[in-house]
Amino acid sequence: MTDLSSAQSESADEFMREAALLLGPRGLTSDPERMDAWLTDWRGRYTGRACALASPASTAEVAALVRLCAQHRIPIVPQGGNSGMAGGATPDDSGTAIILSLRRMNAIRAVSADAGQAVCEAGVVLQTLHEAAEAKGMRFALTLGGKGSATIGGLIATNAGGTQVLRHGTMRAQVLGLEAVLADGSVLDLMTPLKKDNRGFDLKQLLIGSEGTLGIVTAACLKLLPAPAGRVTAWVGLGGIVEARTLLRQIERAMGEALEGFEVVPAHCLDAVLAHQPAARAPLGQSHEWNALIECVSPSSDNAMLRETLEAALAAALDDGLIADAVIAANDTQAEAFWALRDGISAAERALGPAMQHDISVPVERMPEFILAAIPALESAFPGTRAIAFGHLGDGNVHFHVIAPASAVRGAWEEAQGKTISAQVYDLVTAWGGSISAEHGIGQMKVAELARLHDPAALAVMAAVKRALDPDNLLNPGKLLPGPSASHSGPLAPARAVL
Amino acid sequence: MTDLSSAQSESADEFMREAALLLGPRGLTSDPERMDAWLTDWRGRYTGRACALASPASTAEVAALVRLCAQHRIPIVPQGGNSGMAGGATPDDSGTAIILSLRRMNAIRAVSADAGQAVCEAGVVLQTLHEAAEAKGMRFALTLGGKGSATIGGLIATNAGGTQVLRHGTMRAQVLGLEAVLADGSVLDLMTPLKKDNRGFDLKQLLIGSEGTLGIVTAACLKLLPAPAGRVTAWVGLGGIVEARTLLRQIERAMGEALEGFEVVPAHCLDAVLAHQPAARAPLGQSHEWNALIECVSPSSDNAMLRETLEAALAAALDDGLIADAVIAANDTQAEAFWALRDGISAAERALGPAMQHDISVPVERMPEFILAAIPALESAFPGTRAIAFGHLGDGNVHFHVIAPASAVRGAWEEAQGKTISAQVYDLVTAWGGSISAEHGIGQMKVAELARLHDPAALAVMAAVKRALDPDNLLNPGKLLPGPSASHSGPLAPARAVL
Repeated sequence: MTDLSSAQSESADEFMREAALLLGPRGLTSDPERMDAWLTDWRGRYTGRACALASPASTAEVAALVRLCAQHRIPIVPQGGNSGMAGGATPDDSGTAIILSLRRMNAIRAVSADAGQAVCEAGVVLQTLHEAAEAKGMRFALTLGGKGSATIGGLIATNAGGTQVLRHGTMRAQVLGLEAVLADGSVLDLMTPLKKDNRGFDLKQLLIGSEGTLGIVTAACLKLLPAPAGRVTAWVGLGGIVEARTLLRQIERAMGEALEGFEVVPAHCLDAVLAHQPAARAPLGQSHEWNALIECVSPSSDNAMLRETLEAALAAALDDGLIADAVIAANDTQAEAFWALRDGISAAERALGPAMQHDISVPVERMPEFILAAIPALESAFPGTRAIAFGHLGDGNVHFHVIAPASAVRGAWEEAQGKTISAQVYDLVTAWGGSISAEHGIGQMKVAELARLHDPAALAVMAAVKRALDPDNLLNPGKLLPGPSASHSGPLAPARAVL
Repeated sequence: MTDLSSAQSESADEFMREAALLLGPRGLTSDPERMDAWLTDWRGRYTGRACALASPASTAEVAALVRLCAQHRIPIVPQGGNSGMAGGATPDDSGTAIILSLRRMNAIRAVSADAGQAVCEAGVVLQTLHEAAEAKGMRFALTLGGKGSATIGGLIATNAGGTQVLRHGTMRAQVLGLEAVLADGSVLDLMTPLKKDNRGFDLKQLLIGSEGTLGIVTAACLKLLPAPAGRVTAWVGLGGIVEARTLLRQIERAMGEALEGFEVVPAHCLDAVLAHQPAARAPLGQSHEWNALIECVSPSSDNAMLRETLEAALAAALDDGLIADAVIAANDTQAEAFWALRDGISAAERALGPAMQHDISVPVERMPEFILAAIPALESAFPGTRAIAFGHLGDGNVHFHVIAPASAVRGAWEEAQGKTISAQVYDLVTAWGGSISAEHGIGQMKVAELARLHDPAALAVMAAVKRALDPDNLLNPGKLLPGPSASHSGPLAPARAVL
């Protein structure tokens, strides 16, 4: 007589045999050394175990593998560049799941300047796509720090953001078509890029940002734009964040579609970067409570008019007393130096000591008020801490850090205080109608907070959709949504899984 | 002893009593005269019956009514301006459903030029929103023929398109936030407009274009843009549709974001309009096989540069022999006259006799080839017919009409030939990777064709999502998706309804 657990183990063995036959030695390993790098997320916050690392080479192989997993009830953790921010690509520690890596599927199938489209497999690295587009005089208008490792599939699964969202939108706005393998191994082919298509629910949109819980993205048709030929970058000193938002609206009105970036940097962050990067120079002579980094681009290489328009807008703001000082980068090198100050904040702040970091958004209009209310609220609730906010003001999305007191010990402080601090930040954001995850997703990091704070009707709909599309909860279980063992509160009646 | 049908009838009576108490005499009627206008779609193609017309005045009333419907198993047909093109707002002829009209919920709650947002209830008429935006120097960048009756809720439910999609996208791109009542009467509040929000599945996107089958849109936060101050409109004569697409790409490159419209009109359609509108004049001296109507806008009222840029692009196209002739409208009156020619096509074609009309799309790149292949294919399959294509080339979306032979009798011809002709058009479109509904939706008109031609995996996902969110199939039954009695082919196992 066979007991349940040995039956499970036999089924797992059988799965491994069949998967090995399907994928071959390049496509499947359970060697701990070859798996090791992919069991921990890049920031080292989450570590899990897996029964195997599968690396299929084609959509057909992904589909066949998923069918096999469905048959043997093997959970699947899809993984791209393993550079996510919320642990969404790291398995749990049960060791029952496989990691399904898309990295071998890294072909750029087509790049058309004429159509303004690139067709990529899921494992294409963002930087590689940038280069392929540039080679044709085009541009893929989404970029972010992890571009050297982040893959197209992961960027779609997490609806990635970055520094050009103000003008070009998140990953969602770049996807013209996609292909995904569903929980039963069927292939959903939505690759044809149609500008208008009202044949029912937009399933593409449902998959984008679903973090591998509804399907595994295997390919996409992406939007390319003509490469911008000219750019103008300005660094502005201001007295306050309210003024920064007013300036944003004035610049938007003056520059129209040319405005691509509007980032805010408080004095504390700029000082930290200047201390951390000895070669860096402050763009302005004096220090200002707040700084704004503004970038505009133009399709023509003659950016004289763009520059004049921005200069005029900034001169008017200076005359009105809205801003204290401003400088426009004289050349590309100086523009890069401005951006290096902005991009250096995370590392500089990290060097200063432990901090709890939060990726949050509220409506753009309310962001100044929110920052002015949230900073003192956190600092007074946790004496000795310092709260800072910096980043994408133009998107209503800032990185909100709560920095430990000087005496705090890294590790111990986060352990003792971190959860309470973050809970208070997320409470505040929710009270302001904002999002506890503006661009990084939920992954495993924020599952409990999402369940605690999100609209019950929205949670119920998400749970119902998840059960409908993945009744056995095999696609990235434990990510984004609370597991099926957790109680489903909310108004929609739970549907039973059928298979 | 009570038999089933009298129990049903008692429940329906009880529903009517409770609904009357809930909504009052202004909010509920079963008077045939008051219901009559809403039982037939505006084109007179579909007529149904209903047990009542409910007109709730608030989201709370909609929610309470839907709960009541769920309790008594009363099907609900949501209705806005009743100006849909696919019978999506007309009940079936069983008489068991209520029509849930959103027309009383017609408040514009806020218009903010600063935030670039309008908050509207579902029953706001598009034209009313246009006027409210204009009063603040802003613009709602979606417009279409039915703007005097189409409501915001209906436009969202059908993901409406129109003549500015090339630049501004469909309704989906205008929706920053929405509120909807779900099948169990719970309220899904996604109204806060966040530019970045990665808290799981984007349920807003799932509801947009779902034609009332997943929830009833009750309010929305919509994007407003600064009103364009200058515009330049051109009429171009060309020898072929391939040339028109090449011209489109050249104009896109030259004009960038300024290009808002690129419509194509074949000679046959222009002639029909000129014959039908005695006061209309041909924009060019000679007749051309194809015409293109191009519109560009600029944020500044000084459109001299815009005009120069367009003139230069057209002059280059003329020099290259790509186009035969072109004229730029001297003023707004002339620009309106150009648009009147385009907008007059449907009426002029209708006056010529019966025709089967199809709202289809294929990838923009393939549209010329498609037109060149589809026209002779249809004309040879149905001798005596004439096939024409006109409309939104820039969106890959044309209106494809198959005109009856001169001898055909209106009504009899459509009856005898219509279905076969349309099936062949949709077969062709599907073979080209296109959509059988580019902008009008599926409604009741194309349910069978969608089931016949759409990707089985996509159909299965749609059916699974529908069952998950509306297990009793009470929300707009028979629309968009085949009813639950139809067999569910496709790879996903059907989930059982639970309540």
